[in-house]
Amino acid sequence: MTDTQEGRRRRSTRGRDRSERETSGFQQLPWQQVKNPFPPFKFISDDQIEDIHNASLQVLEEIGLNFLLPEARVLLKAAGAQVNDNDTRVRFDRGLIEESVAKAPSEFTMHARNPARNLHWGGNTLNFAMVASPPNVSALDIPRTAGTFDYYCDFLKLAQSLNIVHCLGGYPVEPIDKPPKQRHLYAYQAMVRLCDKVNFAYALGDERIRDDLEMARIARGITMDQLCKEPSFFTVVNANSPLQYDIPMLQGMTEMAKHNQPVIVTPFTLAGAMAPVTVAGALVQQNAEALAGIAYMQIVNPGAPAVYGGFTSNVDMKTGSPAFGTPEHAKATIIGGQLARRYNLPYRASNVNASNAPDVQSTYESQMTIWGCTMGYCNLMMHGLGWIEGGLCASYEKVIIDAEMLQMMAEFLKPLDTSEPELALEAMRDVGPGGHYFGTAHTLERYENAFYAPILSDWRNFETWEEHGSMDATQRAHRIYKELIEAYEPPPLDAAIDEELDDFVQRRIAEGGVTQD
Amino acid sequence: MTDTQEGRRRRSTRGRDRSERETSGFQQLPWQQVKNPFPPFKFISDDQIEDIHNASLQVLEEIGLNFLLPEARVLLKAAGAQVNDNDTRVRFDRGLIEESVAKAPSEFTMHARNPARNLHWGGNTLNFAMVASPPNVSALDIPRTAGTFDYYCDFLKLAQSLNIVHCLGGYPVEPIDKPPKQRHLYAYQAMVRLCDKVNFAYALGDERIRDDLEMARIARGITMDQLCKEPSFFTVVNANSPLQYDIPMLQGMTEMAKHNQPVIVTPFTLAGAMAPVTVAGALVQQNAEALAGIAYMQIVNPGAPAVYGGFTSNVDMKTGSPAFGTPEHAKATIIGGQLARRYNLPYRASNVNASNAPDVQSTYESQMTIWGCTMGYCNLMMHGLGWIEGGLCASYEKVIIDAEMLQMMAEFLKPLDTSEPELALEAMRDVGPGGHYFGTAHTLERYENAFYAPILSDWRNFETWEEHGSMDATQRAHRIYKELIEAYEPPPLDAAIDEELDDFVQRRIAEGGVTQD
Repeated sequence: MTDTQEGRRRRSTRGRDRSERETSGFQQLPWQQVKNPFPPFKFISDDQIEDIHNASLQVLEEIGLNFLLPEARVLLKAAGAQVNDNDTRVRFDRGLIEESVAKAPSEFTMHARNPARNLHWGGNTLNFAMVASPPNVSALDIPRTAGTFDYYCDFLKLAQSLNIVHCLGGYPVEPIDKPPKQRHLYAYQAMVRLCDKVNFAYALGDERIRDDLEMARIARGITMDQLCKEPSFFTVVNANSPLQYDIPMLQGMTEMAKHNQPVIVTPFTLAGAMAPVTVAGALVQQNAEALAGIAYMQIVNPGAPAVYGGFTSNVDMKTGSPAFGTPEHAKATIIGGQLARRYNLPYRASNVNASNAPDVQSTYESQMTIWGCTMGYCNLMMHGLGWIEGGLCASYEKVIIDAEMLQMMAEFLKPLDTSEPELALEAMRDVGPGGHYFGTAHTLERYENAFYAPILSDWRNFETWEEHGSMDATQRAHRIYKELIEAYEPPPLDAAIDEELDDFVQRRIAEGGVTQD
Repeated sequence: MTDTQEGRRRRSTRGRDRSERETSGFQQLPWQQVKNPFPPFKFISDDQIEDIHNASLQVLEEIGLNFLLPEARVLLKAAGAQVNDNDTRVRFDRGLIEESVAKAPSEFTMHARNPARNLHWGGNTLNFAMVASPPNVSALDIPRTAGTFDYYCDFLKLAQSLNIVHCLGGYPVEPIDKPPKQRHLYAYQAMVRLCDKVNFAYALGDERIRDDLEMARIARGITMDQLCKEPSFFTVVNANSPLQYDIPMLQGMTEMAKHNQPVIVTPFTLAGAMAPVTVAGALVQQNAEALAGIAYMQIVNPGAPAVYGGFTSNVDMKTGSPAFGTPEHAKATIIGGQLARRYNLPYRASNVNASNAPDVQSTYESQMTIWGCTMGYCNLMMHGLGWIEGGLCASYEKVIIDAEMLQMMAEFLKPLDTSEPELALEAMRDVGPGGHYFGTAHTLERYENAFYAPILSDWRNFETWEEHGSMDATQRAHRIYKELIEAYEPPPLDAAIDEELDDFVQRRIAEGGVTQD
């Protein structure tokens, strides 16, 4: 008798219906900090890590990076970097890099406006952030279209509703209908009102960051002094790979560092396009760019929280299209974690894919990166929920698909109890050869919480599934996200805080927002 | 600037078309033995493994198993097991188990009729087998229907066409239109004719196995003596969990062991139904059943090749439905590998899911098991390609989806070269800050084979993808499998062998096939 024949024999026990599932409330895992209990995995040896480390220091010494912001070059020169007048190039000797990077903290707490949503970043903690920055949005009944403030708010509601979302990671979809110079005001206010988790702001110049600092301060009801002691929102800076930081990102980065708010320094090293065509070479460049950015932050403000960002994937060499979730991407993600640990820095990676739809491709590419993040011991998984199309589109259904996959990973990471009652010898004595365990005491004591209960997977038998419309998982995800938005309730927000925040936002909007592009 | 904004800036390089992809031949990885270069992963500690080991030996000593075949009990009693007359129960002391299991080889070669398709089973080799034993078949244009010989042959053609398929693992779909007593004759002949890879036979009594031995001998053009030195086909025996082996499987197992052909001993331990509701308890039972079966084989024929099979997953406690690809399943798969290594045995696990369609659920559940197999160091991944619906249906599209996922895993497992040219310092010097790598010498020398080239993933930009019909990955998989069957050519087969095999098959069919049910 073989697997399936045995399965058929037993299948008589398979449930005929589970209609309660279709009407009952949404069951999900509780809010939790996910911990990775395993020793970090080494894709390459420590010697190979040193080879990448040394090559990247050689890049920083011999080639250097362009820092396009003059004020940044002044600071770097004063700290000992090699900078020539009238030249944007900055070269670092290895001592300066190593000393500066060593000043960044290895772990820290991120403060949410709801203290119950504070996060630990570093060590063996794995945090999941929402998708960030797609210009477009789609759903099964919304053909791909430009992001708006309404769609943006929908995704914030999903971020609030799903316990597996630890924080925002940017605008889940770009609210393109808000004017660029005021968009951050509308967007940050909505984040605060609709979601009580850790927030994000874009490092597009320093004026926006100053507004964001004030909004973060108000939202938490604290002084600016206290905010500067308690990281409360974060930004991502992608180097203009290869080997360049532009003016707006350096302005934003400087302002964040000055105020002790974390910057995720993430080189945009797609092998074959903005980085060498070899994974090893792309990682050398990633490492050089990340170290230079983090060193700069420490020169601005020693001890400012920084996160080592890994985003190395590859392009499709036939078309130049970015590819994500490739075998090369999974390798680079794990090795990025080895590098971050080499410097005692928290590590950021991503759950990403290049599919144009929330389909099977988006799923297996995502899984390659989710496992890469886990085995790479990443502390912050950006784009954890909702990203498709290489980041050009936020998918409502993909949010739910990702929530299921991330919940499954969180459960997988729970250690196995092998204490005597769990080894179940008594149960085996009770049941004996040829019986079954459905009714035994050992089962009855445990069955309600014995196993992970999915939010999306449908385990009903084929006939029942067919009777109920043969919905595939993407169609079910569609129904689930709509129900979540329907059932959404905003988290409590102190009326005085809400009013103070609104006053600030309205005033800044009336002033026209920022002057910077 | 953030990930996506940077992506948009670069996206101008993204290809407008790749129509050559749609007409050109099928590009896949070459035939290869996949090796896992990493140290085996430990989900639980060695001490916890000893706890499971000791508990399972206690089960075998105190509770024992039912061996329903009287001749098997005679052999076991003679070997020192505790057997009472008129009782099917067999109890083993730990010495008998440990001594017997130690006689099984830790690795061996599986011989295909085409020697270029021989396989190494054991060590760090990962072999992928086709789906086995579903009674039903489906495709996007074939509503789920009972398996037939024609569908069966289609799947053999796909198994032959896809290099990532290392061997068959049973009938990819049950050819229900062939009479049960003759089915193995039609089926084995088709395996030999349509596919030159390692074969499988079902252990449903000993008569069928005797026919299969003769067909395997003829197919390889060797003597029975030589066949008994060279494992050439294999079977899977699922214990009738809990703690029982029935008559047909013991007959088949005995006949296989006598002739030195491998048996994959795989307890059917779904936690909560046929095994305790705890993963630890289900693993204790799995281990007891696997060790008892493997010990029995070694008592029949010391040194006969055996594989430790792990199939522990859980049921949905709401309905009793089997679930696969759950977090519990992934854990059990990895721990199963730790147990198999404890006994120096090759390890079998599976790529399985419980979805009713080749959709996103089937994909993420599969990925959980593919990663479980890889981290568990499995040597034989059963149901590697094509399984959906808990094994009740073979899906044509899933074969292609799995082929892509397994190819990606094979590529992921290739070690990273960090030699000096790969570190690419020269390329970085060439390109410098702000440039790109598309045209640099380092890229031009490598771009054609730099990265994994997918068979199913579509990385074209959204607009081009939409112009070509917005096909999701399952729809593309549908087209690909049809093209593969269309383009299929049978592997060479010596005419004399083909004739001898056909003579045997026709004679046995004329005789009515086997007498056993």
